[in-house]
Amino acid sequence: MSEGEVLALSGGIGGAKLALGLSRVLPDGSLTVVANTADDFEHLGLNISPDLDTLMYTLAGLDNPEAGWGRGNETWTFMSVLASLGGETWFKLGDGDLAVHVERTRRLRAGESLTAITADFCARLGIAARLLPMSDDRVRTRLRTSDGWLEFQEYFVHRRCAPEVREIAFEGASVAKPNPAVLTALSSSRLRAVVICPSNPLISVDPILALPGMRAALVRCRAPVIAVSPIIGGKAVKGPTAKMLAELGRPVSAVEVALHYRDFLDGFILDEADAPLAPALDMPFTLAKTLMHTLADREALARGVLDFAGTLREKPRG
Amino acid sequence: MSEGEVLALSGGIGGAKLALGLSRVLPDGSLTVVANTADDFEHLGLNISPDLDTLMYTLAGLDNPEAGWGRGNETWTFMSVLASLGGETWFKLGDGDLAVHVERTRRLRAGESLTAITADFCARLGIAARLLPMSDDRVRTRLRTSDGWLEFQEYFVHRRCAPEVREIAFEGASVAKPNPAVLTALSSSRLRAVVICPSNPLISVDPILALPGMRAALVRCRAPVIAVSPIIGGKAVKGPTAKMLAELGRPVSAVEVALHYRDFLDGFILDEADAPLAPALDMPFTLAKTLMHTLADREALARGVLDFAGTLREKPRG
Repeated sequence: MSEGEVLALSGGIGGAKLALGLSRVLPDGSLTVVANTADDFEHLGLNISPDLDTLMYTLAGLDNPEAGWGRGNETWTFMSVLASLGGETWFKLGDGDLAVHVERTRRLRAGESLTAITADFCARLGIAARLLPMSDDRVRTRLRTSDGWLEFQEYFVHRRCAPEVREIAFEGASVAKPNPAVLTALSSSRLRAVVICPSNPLISVDPILALPGMRAALVRCRAPVIAVSPIIGGKAVKGPTAKMLAELGRPVSAVEVALHYRDFLDGFILDEADAPLAPALDMPFTLAKTLMHTLADREALARGVLDFAGTLREKPRG
Repeated sequence: MSEGEVLALSGGIGGAKLALGLSRVLPDGSLTVVANTADDFEHLGLNISPDLDTLMYTLAGLDNPEAGWGRGNETWTFMSVLASLGGETWFKLGDGDLAVHVERTRRLRAGESLTAITADFCARLGIAARLLPMSDDRVRTRLRTSDGWLEFQEYFVHRRCAPEVREIAFEGASVAKPNPAVLTALSSSRLRAVVICPSNPLISVDPILALPGMRAALVRCRAPVIAVSPIIGGKAVKGPTAKMLAELGRPVSAVEVALHYRDFLDGFILDEADAPLAPALDMPFTLAKTLMHTLADREALARGVLDFAGTLREKPRG
């Protein structure tokens, strides 16, 4: 029951909370977390990977749980001086966070892969889970909005998700190579479960799914694939998921998220508050407390996910 | 007597002290400071200009007078996190200092000149003096040492000037274009004095002099050219000047500094402690307190330099 490997697909904050829970309840070395890198961007000459870093900081216990991004115990001298020099300050970079971006940028320019750099950072920070960027190739989320096409961070941070979203594109995804370690993990006989974390399906998980072969590998995968709803009671826990679904003319409901993944999903975790929606789910499900305020909440949800996966193990695959 | 422009050539700490004194006793807009940029280097993917920044911070009142480099009220989170990631930490970059390097690097890559960027930074920081890099072209000091050829910062910071110096080269100097504003200032009829600050002649002033046409412009210049000795009692106030002179087989003496500049120098300022050396100087001189502990010391020396220059004004030029 507790043997085997677990693969989690995740964006930033919500996904990172469950990833941390999984890393704490699973034996060391059995969790692989795949991070969305389509919201990576180049800013001030630096390569910034927001979801990857949120996962790294969270898994290392260095995160800032109040903000949901960046590091705890951070200082802000850099931003303050940058402002005095007339630099761009809409994307907040803490002094410690900056070290990650500067060092990553240096190593990328020296020819190392994002995967290798991330693995080294994680090892130095004492992270037991394996953290993988979804690809070492460049994929960039762009949004067609009421203000025209916008780069992801321009929409997300600079304009605070205010423009209405009409279309989402993952530039480069169709020619990007998925991280080979992810495909290997998905075809492994030791794989126990795949967990789609409670991240925004449209901008955090879809970029991963848009990589060539990824969706097919999830369909083929013999281990159960489970998603945890990022929507509770018709609202997103954090971020623009609900707003974006509505703007795209889709129901703002946990059921919609399950439908979004229906081609490869074997089971769905609904929040207890959404129990009345269960009949609309055409797949195995379980109810859980999906709001993760405390570390104990994260661990409890992780155990619930793994237990639920255990019940789906024998499900025949098409 | 107090009319006209003053041009100062300077390296880092010692020169910056006198530059600050000059900026405080001269009317706004009449001081131009030319900074050595041959100790600039690329580190962690950033363009770093140590002497330029020491001058900028000093003139803006943002310097760290204890260290002689960097900013006061600095934080060090970046370096601490960089160390945790296995990055290179031998060159100390404070969090605020880093903003200057990141923003300068970004603007250089966007095609702006170092001169334009420096002018904008200085305006934003409220600096009344005009601060000019000696050139917008790349010049790099390299030293042939007992450990072979070393880049300047590798020798100066990483190896703490320990290797014995046998030869000094200014890579790129022979093809670099001096800052046109410097040549314009040197030929200006409004020029009142040229001040060679008490900087290391071998590594702070010589790179400026090595630029094509610079030495000839100083020889031609109608205003008096005055140097302030960086050597007092056979010792350098700070830094490796004395050690380097000795290793190159040259006398460690203020007189040697005057001789070093003899082709264009009109007057020399000896420290009072070196009064006995005066007979060995084959040029006009004056004695002054050249150690600048306090702001009052910097202003007093600046006034002394300007007064001395005034006495040399009518000197016929060859």
